[in-house]
Order: sequence, then structure tokens, then C-alpha cells
Amino acid sequence: MKIYNGYNRLNDNYTLMTDAYEYNMAESYLKDGMDIKYAVFDVFFRKVPNGGGYAIMAGIDKIIEYINNIKFNERELDYFKKQGYSDEFIDYLANFKFTGDIYAIPDGTPVFPNEPLVTVKAPIIEAQILETAILSIVNGAMEHATGARRIVEAANGVPVMEFGARRADGLDAAIDASIYGVMAGCKGTSNVHAANMLNMKALGTMAHSYIESFDTELEAFMAFALNNPDNATLLVDTYDTLRSGVPNAIKTFKYLKDNNIKANIGIRIDSGDLAYLSKRAREMMDEAGFNNAKIVLSNGLTAEVIETLYNQGAKFDSLGVGDNISKPNGRMGCVYKEVAIEKNDKFVPRIKLSNDTIKIVNPGFKKLYRVYDNKTNYALADVMSLYDKRIDKDNLVIVSPTDRLKQTTLNDIVLVELQQKIFENGQLVYNDPDILEKQRYCDEEMNKLYPEVKRCINPHEYYVDGTEEYVDFKYDLIGKVKKMTRGD
Amino acid sequence: MKIYNGYNRLNDNYTLMTDAYEYNMAESYLKDGMDIKYAVFDVFFRKVPNGGGYAIMAGIDKIIEYINNIKFNERELDYFKKQGYSDEFIDYLANFKFTGDIYAIPDGTPVFPNEPLVTVKAPIIEAQILETAILSIVNGAMEHATGARRIVEAANGVPVMEFGARRADGLDAAIDASIYGVMAGCKGTSNVHAANMLNMKALGTMAHSYIESFDTELEAFMAFALNNPDNATLLVDTYDTLRSGVPNAIKTFKYLKDNNIKANIGIRIDSGDLAYLSKRAREMMDEAGFNNAKIVLSNGLTAEVIETLYNQGAKFDSLGVGDNISKPNGRMGCVYKEVAIEKNDKFVPRIKLSNDTIKIVNPGFKKLYRVYDNKTNYALADVMSLYDKRIDKDNLVIVSPTDRLKQTTLNDIVLVELQQKIFENGQLVYNDPDILEKQRYCDEEMNKLYPEVKRCINPHEYYVDGTEEYVDFKYDLIGKVKKMTRGD
Repeated sequence: MKIYNGYNRLNDNYTLMTDAYEYNMAESYLKDGMDIKYAVFDVFFRKVPNGGGYAIMAGIDKIIEYINNIKFNERELDYFKKQGYSDEFIDYLANFKFTGDIYAIPDGTPVFPNEPLVTVKAPIIEAQILETAILSIVNGAMEHATGARRIVEAANGVPVMEFGARRADGLDAAIDASIYGVMAGCKGTSNVHAANMLNMKALGTMAHSYIESFDTELEAFMAFALNNPDNATLLVDTYDTLRSGVPNAIKTFKYLKDNNIKANIGIRIDSGDLAYLSKRAREMMDEAGFNNAKIVLSNGLTAEVIETLYNQGAKFDSLGVGDNISKPNGRMGCVYKEVAIEKNDKFVPRIKLSNDTIKIVNPGFKKLYRVYDNKTNYALADVMSLYDKRIDKDNLVIVSPTDRLKQTTLNDIVLVELQQKIFENGQLVYNDPDILEKQRYCDEEMNKLYPEVKRCINPHEYYVDGTEEYVDFKYDLIGKVKKMTRGD
Repeated sequence: MKIYNGYNRLNDNYTLMTDAYEYNMAESYLKDGMDIKYAVFDVFFRKVPNGGGYAIMAGIDKIIEYINNIKFNERELDYFKKQGYSDEFIDYLANFKFTGDIYAIPDGTPVFPNEPLVTVKAPIIEAQILETAILSIVNGAMEHATGARRIVEAANGVPVMEFGARRADGLDAAIDASIYGVMAGCKGTSNVHAANMLNMKALGTMAHSYIESFDTELEAFMAFALNNPDNATLLVDTYDTLRSGVPNAIKTFKYLKDNNIKANIGIRIDSGDLAYLSKRAREMMDEAGFNNAKIVLSNGLTAEVIETLYNQGAKFDSLGVGDNISKPNGRMGCVYKEVAIEKNDKFVPRIKLSNDTIKIVNPGFKKLYRVYDNKTNYALADVMSLYDKRIDKDNLVIVSPTDRLKQTTLNDIVLVELQQKIFENGQLVYNDPDILEKQRYCDEEMNKLYPEVKRCINPHEYYVDGTEEYVDFKYDLIGKVKKMTRGD
């Protein structure tokens, strides 16, 4: 894919990157001749991490590459031979090829709890073998993208730079964090590997160690600024931000000016009280005549901290964010649940009740629509229906899938199907956009959400409902399964 | 490396997996002829994540592979050409080879805040270029290992299985979680890729989807148990654990018994109140004569939850743990700080003061010792000294590096140097043990920690002190830098 500039998204054969139970179930299905039976699985999450009102879909690029490269070579087959799997099963794996269909919500879309993000419809063994890898791809990717977008929203137009590689979960996760961070709205990344993949210039100037490698802070600033006038952002908090760093930065800017050296000047503050320090630094630089000097703030920034910076009148021109993109608090917790199985050529819905009611899935092979207000263009709700049922634009009654009393009737709406077909009979049929296209699309879709859904603290809950018919169907099914369990 | 069964630990050239500022500083050093100057950097963390009393060192295996494979090929050099770096710098990179020394605490060692885990002594550009990748390797690896060990300690001898691949940060992090989970004491993993690397059998039986693919739970149990008598652990919580799952499991066990089919029987409970359900399930299986049926518990287990299970008399023979190994709450937050720089052929210590006192580093090129009680074998403290200073076993005075009033005198002790030399003049000189050796070593070293340091809640703080001489040196240096900053 040209957008990755000659790099692959995945670097190895990950065919075995799967929980053993997938293979143990697969072997058992094969013994019972159930390998030809189709099943439908949905990927969804139950709760937005970090108390947010939305998550950002991500990971389709890697899912595509993973599926296109599934192959049991000798190295993989050896494992099954050594561990005593049956010859019949090893033969099956040797000839394995994904032959099913995959539907998914495109990368960059804001998404919500309990709706199908990815749907796999395939012979049951194939669907099962994909489970673990799809989940770890989507969980990781969405955490980065969702974490990044929270920051971008809080930054309110001020550019956010992704600086998180060093806090990521290893080298590959660091690259993902940068790529999905940019996809979700970051204007740049410090990660050279990711930048090279995206054909961008990576961002960065100096660390504290640079300052410490010189006898004085001023010497370090002068050396760096003279060597890099285009990129003269000086890190001012090594010794004392206001008593040493900012005054030395101003001396450096004066030297550049006095010697007619054209430079992009600025400072970065990476510790201490960023609100107070940035306001004082701004005043000091303005008084010295350097209104053009930019201020970059960094150091453990969260969406909540950025809101506080605004409330306190902090002065900044861009923000560098690490941890909360490469390793945000909270987990997506996406799951992969069987929602239907083929029986006599028909898809029969499946549901898992369990002792935790929150774990009850939305059953059946479904379609998912986003409902927009035709006048304002705002997204009003997402609605599920069974895949073969009509949905009406007029007088559309949408019902909460967990509380039938919660109903709304909608008119003058636009319905957009959210999932795209990615694979059909095992063949890729989707043209995955490049990362900057995904970034633009993410911006557009985020603009269609009500601000109340996007706020950091106590966001309004966006509705993921069903058609009336769908919710009736779900409740009927729960009733039947309960009856069966009681043995009536 | 034979332990990885023909697999590499890293799958690509990660030479560019570095923050851009490393290269921007490097280019500036090169312009100023500072490329030959040596510097010393320490990797350390400031706080144990999750309120724990210790962390587990991990990632040396990947650091070795990363450094041995650093190479600026055409694909890497193209980036610098496109982005306008100088020809001199591009030439420098084309001929780049790591030539320095690396010291590190071995994988599997329990470690503590503010002590040097990894020390890089190298020409400053080289040391700087390694920074980002070393940090992301160590941060990721240590989070998995530390998360796993907390669980293993809480499990108190009951085997812990690592089940976390699906919740990891992408496919590579999933493999790391499994490998470092096993290193830190997990007895097995569900991850087939990792198991194949470690030459182990991956563990697992069935998912809820397996049950749902049959018309009834009993049919599913019978099919699986007959196909897998060696591994007949039945998942009992798909419909209703006590009213459906356990009774159907007992029926299945009876069938196996009545037909003289030898089987390893058991159940897994993956939702609901695990304490209550496991006790009732145990009673039901015992009453039916299946005292030999094992109970596996899973579902979001943390160290704290496991302690509660014990307090409440829950019944279990093994535990499956996912999230809290593949993505534990809290971050290691390891940093890479310059502690010394060469000047006139001597190492001059460096220190960063900053506005946050917690960010003051322990300066200088150091040695780190673990002090054991000669009688009990318990670890009493870790002690830092400057690398070229003697340390005495008799009447050793150790002092807190942040509070000179906190002093202790030690006698009848054994001193063990913690860091090993990994690279010397760019050459690997260390024989990295295999994962199961590391696991044994980790068990041994954990046994030498006082239980008070290991407890989950409010653990006792293990001392990381300095020799008296070292702490005096540190305070003197802080005084000098403060004077310099004030411009005295």
C-alpha cells in the first residue's frame, strides 16, 4: 500500500497469534463435521474507556493485512504436529484459506458501545481462528485513536503532536500509537519510523540531556539554534524555567535577531505548573519583543488537564502528548461474540445470557445505520435491524435494546449504513483510504456529533438503539433461551 | 536464539523507531564536533505502578536484538534525504554502528524506583539514538512482567495461566505479554504463537461460542469431551452456571465415567460472582462424586480480586488472567536520563533539577548493589555508589538519596552487584538466559524479598539508598547547580 511508503503494516506471519482454544474448538468442529457450518460473529465494546462519550474506530488496515497473510507454513504446522493434534486437522490447516465475508465500520468513525464494529460471517472454524488477532488489533488501535481524539477535542483547534513512542507497549505498539494518533487528528508525530511510513516529517527538537551536555544552558541553546534556525524550539525547564531557561532563550533569540539570522523561534516547557509558567514565559518573551516565539507545552497532558489550561488562561501554540495516546488509561475491552449460526440454510440468532446482564449481546446478523438530522446534519442515534429487514425513514421508531420503554419516533432523517464490506468470499473488496484521508473523515464525522456527546466530563449518552422489530425480536429470544435453561 | 524456536524477537529493522529529536540533537552534535564525546545515561522508573512494592525487570532480550540489528539501509536513509538533513549527517548514519557499553539488571529481577535498570555508556550521539526504542521496549516488557508477578504472588502457589492476547496492544504486544508473563511466573499461556516460540503447549479449551454453536449446552459439552478427553474443561457460564452449566458438566462427566473413558475433567467459570459460584460448583461436583474435577476461574482477575477469593473461601485449582497481564493499569514510566558526560577524559556527573523535585535524578556513572542479610538471605536494600569507589561490607552506612537524615548501618551482609555487562565496545558479551531459566531466577529472587514488600495493599517501601559518600556527592552537586542557575 503506497501510503505506507514501502513498509508493511505487519512484519511477520501472525497465523498462530491466536488463543489455543480457537484451535481446540476448531479441531473438535472438524471431527464432528461442523467445519462447513457458517457462523456470524460481532466485535463490539461495552463501555467507552475513561468515561468518554465516544470511541474512534481503528485497525481495519491491520486486519486487512493480517487476513491477507494467514498461512500455515512448516514452522506453524510443526507446532500442531509436536503438540499431538490429529493428522486430519493438520491437513485442514495446511490448506487453510479464509473464505468468508467481513463487514466493518471504517477507520476514523466515532463509534459507541454495543454496536457491531466488525462482523465476520464465515465457516465457523475460520471465524473462530481469526478471533484473537482481530481483537488485539482493534483493541490496541482503538485505544490509541480514542485517546488521541479526546486530546484533540480538548485542544480545541490548537495543534496536538504525538510524542508517545517511549511510553508505548514495545516498538510495534509505538508505531501504531503514532499512526492512529495522526489518523484521529494529531497534526504530527515525533516517531521517525511512523513518519517515514506516512511520508511526513517527524517533529522534535531537543531533550534535557542536550542542555546538560554543554557547560551552560545558554551555550546549548546557542549551539542548537545556530545549527537549526528553522526549528529553534528551546527546552527551558532543565534548571529553572523562569530564572534560567526563559532568560537564556530570550538571549538566544536576541543573538539571532541581532545577526539577522531568520529563525522559527519558540520554547518548550516540560515540567512544573504549565499554566503559571506559560503565562509568565509569554509575558517575558513579549516584553523582550518576541511575540513571534511559540510556546509548546508537554508533560503528561490529558484532556482534563488541557481543559484546565484553557480555564486558567495558559498560553500555548501547540501541545505535545505522549502517554495518553500511546497508553491511555482504561481499556476498550472489545469482545467477539457469536450472534448467529447457520441451520438448514438459515441464520439462527444466538445469544449468551450469563450471570452478568451487561454481558447480554445484541443477537442476530444485523445491519447498523447512523441516523442524521436532515436539517442540521447532526447524528441523532445509531440503529440496528436484522440484515434482511427493511428500515423506514419515515416515522422510524427506535427503541433501547435494554429497556423497551425508551422509545423515540424520528422523521426528516438521513440513514447511512455504517458497515462497509471489506472481504467477500475471502477476497478483499474494500479500498482502505490512506491515513490523512481517514483523518479528514474523522474530523468531519466528529463535527456531526453534538458537543454534549463530546465533552470530557459526564458526556451525554449517544443512543445505540434498535428498530422496534429488532428489539421485540431480541426480547423474544431472551425469553426462549431462559425457558430452555429452566428446562420447561 | 534457540529458546525462541527459530523465531526472532523483533521482526523488522526498527532503526527509525526513535523520536525525531534524537536525530536533531545528533545532527547538531555532529556539526559541533561533539560526536566523539562519551555520555552515560540511566534508565529508571520513579514509582511502582498500581501501588505495588516492586517491579520485575524485563526486556533485555529485545534490547539485545534491537541493538544488534540497528542499520540505516536505503529505506531509512531516504527519510533523512527527503527531510533535508545534511549530507555529512547522512554519511554519518550510513556508517553508524553502536560502539558503546551497556549494563543492565537481568530480566526477572525484582527492581525498585530510582535505581539504574539499564546504563548506556557510549558516544553521545549513539546513546541518544538508542533512547526511544530502549524505553518503549523496557516500559512495555516491565508492565507485563510486573502485572503478571502481582497476580502470581496473589495466587499463592495456585497456577496462573496467561490468557491476555486479545486485550493486548496489537499482535506484537500480545506476544510480549505472553512471553514476559511466563517469565514472571505464569505456568502457561493461551497464545499459540508465544507458546511455539517457547516450545510449550498453549492452553485452552472452549469459548461461549462453541456452546452456542450447538442446539443445547449438553450436546456441546459431550461433543467436546469426547473429542478431547485429555482436556475436558467445560465452560459452564453460557446460560446459567448453577442451573444449567454445572449440571450439564456433571452429566458429561458421568457419561465419560460410565463408558470408562479416561479424561481430565474440569469446569471454567468466566462470569458472575466467582467466589459464590465456585463454592457451589465444588459442592455439586463433589456430591456427584467428581472430586477430581478441577475448577478454573477467569474474568478480569486482579491481584486484589484473587486475595478476596481466598478470603471468601472460593474453590479453584487454577486461574486464567488476561487484561492484568497484557494491559495492567498504571504505567512503568521508565525514563532515560543523562547522568554523566566525558570532559577532559573524565566523567563529569550531570543532574537535572527542574521545577518538580521528584524529577531530580541520581547523578553520576554508578554501580548498584543488592544487600542481603548473610543469615536470613533476605534482601535488605539496594545501594548505589560511584563506579570507581570502593564499597565496604563491614559497617556499611546506607543513606536515603532524598533525605540525608535517613541512615542505617549494616553488618554481616552479602553484597551482589546487580547490573551485568551486556555490550562492550558495541559487542554482545552477555549470555541471555532462556525464558524458563529467567522464570526460575525470578521465583528465587522474589523469595528473598520480605513478604511486607510484596503485599498487594500498602507494601513496605524497599530502600534504594546510596553509600554515605555517594549521597554527599549528590547533595554537593545539587548545591553547585543551584548556585550556577542563580548566576552566583
